[in-house]
Amino acid sequence: MSTINFESIRMGKFTLRFKPYTLEMRHVFTVASFSRTTTPVVLTELEYDGIVGYGEASMPPYLGETQESVMQFLRKIDLSAFTSPFQTAEILSYVDQIAEKNTAAKAALDIALHDLLGKIMNQPFYKIWGLNPDLIPPTSYTIGIDSEDMIRKKVAEADQFKILKVKLGLDTDKMIIDTIRSVTDVPLCADVNQGWKNKEEALEMAHWLHEKNVVFLEQPMPKEMIDENAWLTAHSPIPTIADEGCQRLVDVPKLQGVYTGINIKLMKCTGMREAKQMAELARSLDMKVMLGCMTETSCAISAAAQLAPLVDWADLDGALLIGNDIYDGMKVENGKCILPDRPGIGIRLK
Amino acid sequence: MSTINFESIRMGKFTLRFKPYTLEMRHVFTVASFSRTTTPVVLTELEYDGIVGYGEASMPPYLGETQESVMQFLRKIDLSAFTSPFQTAEILSYVDQIAEKNTAAKAALDIALHDLLGKIMNQPFYKIWGLNPDLIPPTSYTIGIDSEDMIRKKVAEADQFKILKVKLGLDTDKMIIDTIRSVTDVPLCADVNQGWKNKEEALEMAHWLHEKNVVFLEQPMPKEMIDENAWLTAHSPIPTIADEGCQRLVDVPKLQGVYTGINIKLMKCTGMREAKQMAELARSLDMKVMLGCMTETSCAISAAAQLAPLVDWADLDGALLIGNDIYDGMKVENGKCILPDRPGIGIRLK
Repeated sequence: MSTINFESIRMGKFTLRFKPYTLEMRHVFTVASFSRTTTPVVLTELEYDGIVGYGEASMPPYLGETQESVMQFLRKIDLSAFTSPFQTAEILSYVDQIAEKNTAAKAALDIALHDLLGKIMNQPFYKIWGLNPDLIPPTSYTIGIDSEDMIRKKVAEADQFKILKVKLGLDTDKMIIDTIRSVTDVPLCADVNQGWKNKEEALEMAHWLHEKNVVFLEQPMPKEMIDENAWLTAHSPIPTIADEGCQRLVDVPKLQGVYTGINIKLMKCTGMREAKQMAELARSLDMKVMLGCMTETSCAISAAAQLAPLVDWADLDGALLIGNDIYDGMKVENGKCILPDRPGIGIRLK
Repeated sequence: MSTINFESIRMGKFTLRFKPYTLEMRHVFTVASFSRTTTPVVLTELEYDGIVGYGEASMPPYLGETQESVMQFLRKIDLSAFTSPFQTAEILSYVDQIAEKNTAAKAALDIALHDLLGKIMNQPFYKIWGLNPDLIPPTSYTIGIDSEDMIRKKVAEADQFKILKVKLGLDTDKMIIDTIRSVTDVPLCADVNQGWKNKEEALEMAHWLHEKNVVFLEQPMPKEMIDENAWLTAHSPIPTIADEGCQRLVDVPKLQGVYTGINIKLMKCTGMREAKQMAELARSLDMKVMLGCMTETSCAISAAAQLAPLVDWADLDGALLIGNDIYDGMKVENGKCILPDRPGIGIRLK
């Protein structure tokens, strides 16, 4: 990538570069709590020995980060004590302890580091992890909360997808499902974004949705409602998945029995290394694994996709929702994620 | 390695070779249940595209495998459906389902596959995993059950080690500890090999050993005594570690609360991939991690050592206990494990 407009920090054998970028969304995007038309991101590059790895932080508003907070965090990183990018565990552990939050900023560094390492080893990261990209489940595509006409239009546009994700949590839930069911039979997953507040009503909806071939319920009730979510999970005919309720590795064991599974997102969990550990931990605990994303470029999407062969459900449509992606990376063809056979996370500038 | 005496199986793009080998032990080795002077192993090689990875199965008698059972298992493996060694997860999952047990035979294939992959990527596996070998804890060295004179002699020989492992579980326990304490103050770990049968007596011994600077208790009581081991763990002044009670990944979550930690051995858990997952899972569950070994050559030892930066205690003396190691690999200098900076598991023929 051209280094124009990048702020650049030299630290020992490493150079970190970053710049803000604004993603323009193809459609106004509405979920239970807000609407928006753009998403701010910060693009990063980590260079070592002439090799450059790419990373990205994406900051949807509910995450509590901004371009400025990400860049402030990145300015605090000093890798000059590290002599090799292969000291991955220590580098990421050092970065993690710089501040408590800033998970998207940490992910931007983690992704760039993994891309760099893959390029040094000259292998895509899914190969380094021993995973087969043919096993990636078909990605879902998200239909936001909208009018009946717009929903029908969006579903028609999404005819390549084998599974759709529907945002619920307002009083339009049944209308949305009925509208979609008037035009397609594909399986749906329902993301409630904590929108339901009553467990009995949630269970009633779970049964109704199950009959409509909705295959799981994401974050049905507020994350603080531990007992209610656990009760719903015990009674629901379809799996429940923690999203807002599951941020990082340390959360996973506590969620056993509360939800059937977890939704892993790089921007929540600080990146690829911890994401893979979360997927393996959840599997070990007999929990289901979903891999999600924010609105982001093909950089963060392609990074997440490296571990998608490990998961039950992939929701990697983030780059499809924007009009100004600057990278070529993971493609979606007939609803299937196609990973490039290129080193690292496999992206290149368009 | 010369291919002389190796049985060779061609399967698609892979060739698997193996042969029996008998390790001669420097000292008669006695634990709570038996004594022996040799250990049977099977050496393996996995070749792909002209690159050869080395592996090993070690079969101490209590593991229930023999050279013949290992070779019979290896003859059942057919990798011709796989086009690349990078399909690691699927290859190992296929090998695992060939038969229920045969964990050492499975480890022999897993180790050879990891060595091969590391050589293809031209990196030591600890680097591929992002681990720093400087963080490997000093390895313990095992003093078997013996006469007072022999114990003093063995401890004197072991003066480079910063921690010693003592085999307990017979009525000579206090004599052994007192004898060692008459010649050295180094921290000890006590491996009881299920030798104690009464929880109150075990707790009394735990207190006595704690005063003698014994830092943990390995498998104090029979693995079937779940409640008694859990009671001991709750009351013991020093950590308890599951060995016979912890074989594979699936066991780990069940051992939370029963033991403080687990002892991971490649020959129990089918190899490097599952071993790493076990270490990370135990960490996620706030359990301690010990990395152990069988009597084995520098092949299996160097394989285990790749993940040793992840553990609290390393017990990697297996190759030091034998007189006819055929590989150069991990070295022990002043009690510290030194990993070779060579690709894969880093070994070569002597």
